[in-house]
Amino acid sequence: MTQTSENKSPGKTIKSTNLHAVEHRVPVQGRWRKNGHRGGVLWLTGLSGSGKSTLAMELEQVLHYGGYQVYVLDGDNVRGGLNADLGFSPEDRTENIRRIGEVAALFADAGVIVITAFISPYQEDRDLARSAGKDQFHEVFIDADLDTCEERDPKGLYKKARLGEIPEFTGISAPYEAPENARLTINTSKFSIQESLDVLLEYIEENFAEKREVESAA
Amino acid sequence: MTQTSENKSPGKTIKSTNLHAVEHRVPVQGRWRKNGHRGGVLWLTGLSGSGKSTLAMELEQVLHYGGYQVYVLDGDNVRGGLNADLGFSPEDRTENIRRIGEVAALFADAGVIVITAFISPYQEDRDLARSAGKDQFHEVFIDADLDTCEERDPKGLYKKARLGEIPEFTGISAPYEAPENARLTINTSKFSIQESLDVLLEYIEENFAEKREVESAA
Repeated sequence: MTQTSENKSPGKTIKSTNLHAVEHRVPVQGRWRKNGHRGGVLWLTGLSGSGKSTLAMELEQVLHYGGYQVYVLDGDNVRGGLNADLGFSPEDRTENIRRIGEVAALFADAGVIVITAFISPYQEDRDLARSAGKDQFHEVFIDADLDTCEERDPKGLYKKARLGEIPEFTGISAPYEAPENARLTINTSKFSIQESLDVLLEYIEENFAEKREVESAA
Repeated sequence: MTQTSENKSPGKTIKSTNLHAVEHRVPVQGRWRKNGHRGGVLWLTGLSGSGKSTLAMELEQVLHYGGYQVYVLDGDNVRGGLNADLGFSPEDRTENIRRIGEVAALFADAGVIVITAFISPYQEDRDLARSAGKDQFHEVFIDADLDTCEERDPKGLYKKARLGEIPEFTGISAPYEAPENARLTINTSKFSIQESLDVLLEYIEENFAEKREVESAA
């Protein structure tokens, strides 16, 4: 069997061979100009109960009605479909985050601002997602101390974890590695949802602005 | 360990538990009205050399400059990233198509017209992709007879397959199951690229039209 594909990302092992690309013809910058903003990945990471999902949904709503192309990837739309074959073993957790990082990168390439809301406790896994998203990857640390999260316990999960009903629960029986190089940190123990949202919106305006160009129909 | 997730799609096994959704707030219809068209999956299937990739890229370009949100998933952006861990064994081929079907469904949910360009030779695999994409899944058979494809042989793959250098090559040493219920069939042995493109554009206009609503900024 001949080996005809190239590994375009050094260090990555690509198993498939005999692939020949037909060139894509829509440059990502063309998508940015059409949408009036850049595409990219807003990778929210933090403990369960830190407010990731709430902020993701609020942000999606505001951006959508503000004219942005925006989409949230979370457990709701990923765990039941793309990653339905994955459980919570260490290998499966890593593969879960790897796939989400790759899918997020595809959305960014399509010109969409994709907001991901996953605990993603390991720096190594987040770094893999960063390497997929490249320059358009924005690690956002949703920082709330464990006591606050456990007090909120919106899903009753901490209680179950303390009772030993959930093994390897992040913050209780499994580690959370806080981001070392987050582009943005929001302390939701101190800030309200509205205040946190304002910080995110300001960040988006500063980092994703692009002059809109009305393109003629082909 | 408590079992708290629900299998939302009957027949699907979802391994993950302890998931609680925060509700998504942007209805897909809101995305359609903003974009002026529905999202959906245009699933191009056909032999190597039938013209899938060429038509996908042409269609993406025309739709993009025509104001559509559109994106192509093909071997180029999927095999090197999301599916870099998969080879060409029967199991890996099935998993390749399964994941692409799920990712395409996410793009459709985000309001994008996603065009996929994969041989996807098995009806069962395509049916799985259809069940992910639901009503917004459009199977498009890019039909060209084997002789035509082998004569074109744009990538030199048929030649290699005939020499036995590529095992299980669709059409030569592995079957291609033509779609039984394609929503659209385009015979590229008879039609030129431009003619085929016109058929696709007409299909898009008929099936994806949605009145655009200018929404006020939030």
